[in-house]
Amino acid sequence: MIKDILYLAKNNDQKSFYLKGWITNNRGNKNIRFIEMNDGSTVENLQLVIKKSPQLDLEQISSYKLGSAIEVRGKLSYTPNQKQIAELEVETLLLVAEADDDFPIQKKETSLEFLRTIPHIRHRTSTLRAATLVRSTISFAIHEFFQSSGFALVASPIITSNDGEGAGETFSIKNEQSSDPFFGKDVNPFLSVTGQLHAEAYALGMQKVYTFAPTFRAENSHTTKHAAEFWMIEPEVSFYELPDLIKLADDMLRFVVDRVLKRNEAEIKFLSEVNNVDLFTRLKKLLVTNLKVLEYREAIKILKKANVDFENKDIKFGTDLATEHERYLAEVYYQGPISIINYPKSFKAFYMYQNDDNETVAAFDLLVPGIGELIGGSQRESRYDKLLNRVKELNIDEQSLQWYLDLRKYGYKASAGFGLGLERLIMYITGMENIRDVLPFPRTPNNLKM
Amino acid sequence: MIKDILYLAKNNDQKSFYLKGWITNNRGNKNIRFIEMNDGSTVENLQLVIKKSPQLDLEQISSYKLGSAIEVRGKLSYTPNQKQIAELEVETLLLVAEADDDFPIQKKETSLEFLRTIPHIRHRTSTLRAATLVRSTISFAIHEFFQSSGFALVASPIITSNDGEGAGETFSIKNEQSSDPFFGKDVNPFLSVTGQLHAEAYALGMQKVYTFAPTFRAENSHTTKHAAEFWMIEPEVSFYELPDLIKLADDMLRFVVDRVLKRNEAEIKFLSEVNNVDLFTRLKKLLVTNLKVLEYREAIKILKKANVDFENKDIKFGTDLATEHERYLAEVYYQGPISIINYPKSFKAFYMYQNDDNETVAAFDLLVPGIGELIGGSQRESRYDKLLNRVKELNIDEQSLQWYLDLRKYGYKASAGFGLGLERLIMYITGMENIRDVLPFPRTPNNLKM
Repeated sequence: MIKDILYLAKNNDQKSFYLKGWITNNRGNKNIRFIEMNDGSTVENLQLVIKKSPQLDLEQISSYKLGSAIEVRGKLSYTPNQKQIAELEVETLLLVAEADDDFPIQKKETSLEFLRTIPHIRHRTSTLRAATLVRSTISFAIHEFFQSSGFALVASPIITSNDGEGAGETFSIKNEQSSDPFFGKDVNPFLSVTGQLHAEAYALGMQKVYTFAPTFRAENSHTTKHAAEFWMIEPEVSFYELPDLIKLADDMLRFVVDRVLKRNEAEIKFLSEVNNVDLFTRLKKLLVTNLKVLEYREAIKILKKANVDFENKDIKFGTDLATEHERYLAEVYYQGPISIINYPKSFKAFYMYQNDDNETVAAFDLLVPGIGELIGGSQRESRYDKLLNRVKELNIDEQSLQWYLDLRKYGYKASAGFGLGLERLIMYITGMENIRDVLPFPRTPNNLKM
Repeated sequence: MIKDILYLAKNNDQKSFYLKGWITNNRGNKNIRFIEMNDGSTVENLQLVIKKSPQLDLEQISSYKLGSAIEVRGKLSYTPNQKQIAELEVETLLLVAEADDDFPIQKKETSLEFLRTIPHIRHRTSTLRAATLVRSTISFAIHEFFQSSGFALVASPIITSNDGEGAGETFSIKNEQSSDPFFGKDVNPFLSVTGQLHAEAYALGMQKVYTFAPTFRAENSHTTKHAAEFWMIEPEVSFYELPDLIKLADDMLRFVVDRVLKRNEAEIKFLSEVNNVDLFTRLKKLLVTNLKVLEYREAIKILKKANVDFENKDIKFGTDLATEHERYLAEVYYQGPISIINYPKSFKAFYMYQNDDNETVAAFDLLVPGIGELIGGSQRESRYDKLLNRVKELNIDEQSLQWYLDLRKYGYKASAGFGLGLERLIMYITGMENIRDVLPFPRTPNNLKM
């Protein structure tokens, strides 16, 4: 495919290739035409140089429309001094499937907003194609990282009756074709908001596990960072405590960023330009900077001293940091990824390990410039009684969590895990600003296209 | 972890190791004890040899219960002539978290049926642990295969309003906390039964894509092969026709099987024993046997001639093959994987490419011994008019599929793809006979545990 050919363009000089793809540009005159062709393997188009000949009818070729499928044979010419590193000197060119005149991706620029109305077509623009390719690389790199580190992938269930976060609005499930509830009369099935509790059960015995699955929130949120359906990666490791977990998150991030830089240089270059962010600096800096770890109490002190007109000025122990605070810490104060640890238990989940100060839990959030929170995780409460008390304090249904409490009875030394929102990571790495543009078919309030 | 140490046991002879894990067996006398320990990395337990010494109180150690978490330091002893390839001569042993007496996994054998009542614990048996590890390897190998073949992973949506199969019972979705339907009043959101239509949109432009996502059926089915929630892998490739697609399926299967044999030898050996199937023969045969391709019309002739008392004896052109027929073809007639092609269009999906005979479609099913259908796929109908006519013939809602029809207008030469049920493949490779034992938390009628 084009990516492979261009990657070794110098070695491929004067070699013959047979390629299939789609026309993204078609210009020239009656003696020579230049068609740009893309085959989906890279954001880069291959320039086809078509000179008039008995086999090549330039007048006919000039009528080939954008979006049409072609099959082409020709010789590669290595052109290191030109804008494109190589071009194909065409010998035969076949139009195999035409695009209608109303093909929505034309030469004139289209807005991301308009493109969201055609999610079945928009990946045929360079921007969405680049984001799609990087998304795929990131997803696979995450699998590579965990698999090579001895983790087993566990399929956390999507339909569940356990609400891991103990809050949040969920989607219920009905089987409408029947009057009998599919899963029985006494259960309330809904779409999972996290696979964490189930992953924790598996970590106890499998030691290192991770999930990679869709999760759901029925929150009526219209921000650029929330979708009703998104993907989460949730590693969970037995015997791990908070510092081990933070190192795991840090190692994973570096691994993924390194892979993207190696595999998607062209896409990152292109996305830097269209999104007006210097992604290479952002990503290479992450690779060479140590992750800063900051106590929540310290973070509060820094924010109090900050000479910034925050919207929420009520900054004290117990304040749940807002995005403005997180971004100040990551972008202004530290200018790089930063991990805040030991949050007040008042606004953190029931299952987090209670520190000896009785006020904080062994949790961390990893913040990055441009996004804010990318990862959130914690060491889990391993002590049965402490966990049960917290469940009661928060009026969480104890009975439905009995299985989860029981885990503490069977060789539960410690366990820790985090949740990574895949789309947030994609946004950080690609510089895309709206989650709707890094999900192929985004689901948001009043929006369920296809 | 134990897997790494045993893998290179010979090289690790007399080296010191520090390990964490859980006790799976504890026997011996007052001078020597043998604890088997598992750390989740392999089905194999590591035997700890504990000789009486001032640091090791054997009486106390004899009281350590199954399921308890321990941390151990010792020297590896390579023992190629014993049952286990190596054992650890213990220097220090620490009980770090005890298991209660009621830990359900004890030495006496437990039935798979009983284990299904404790999905949060059953992976602590050797059988479920082995199945979990192989499931993880298979999942990653599928990603490896497609990524190394130039495919982009595409997140097909879970919540959808498009019913790709045009039939089947689905789960509807409600946001109960609000009176306003989340996705608007005019849409009927349900859980996806396939990502195929969305993948096809992406293949047109990205060329080679695959999905790896959960899919759902609200069928009140109580067989050993059906679950309400299961995972599907659906590759889709532009420009591919049926023969290209069958080769892709065949290549993928071989790649995955080869990876499992390399990475999970111990698990396959163990599962062969407990499931009473010679998995090595099954899997190695697949690697060396060519996939047999058989016309549906030929299959009908073979079945008619077969001297077998089928339950469904009405075998003629137009008969939808049942599992008994499929298994006869794969197990008795060909004794290996077999691909049946060009089925009657009468019982196949609307989007399949209509062959020139006007009776059949360019579809294939890949059947394997012991399972029956493992993979089903087709070349897609690329001709707008033919597709539209079929949609009308079958009374499928045309309007909701307009976007899908429109794909044919924009450079659609050809496209083909298949669906692989992940759990079926796991069952084939592990010899597990019930889908409930290869899904961590299976969802079936009246069964929604945790």
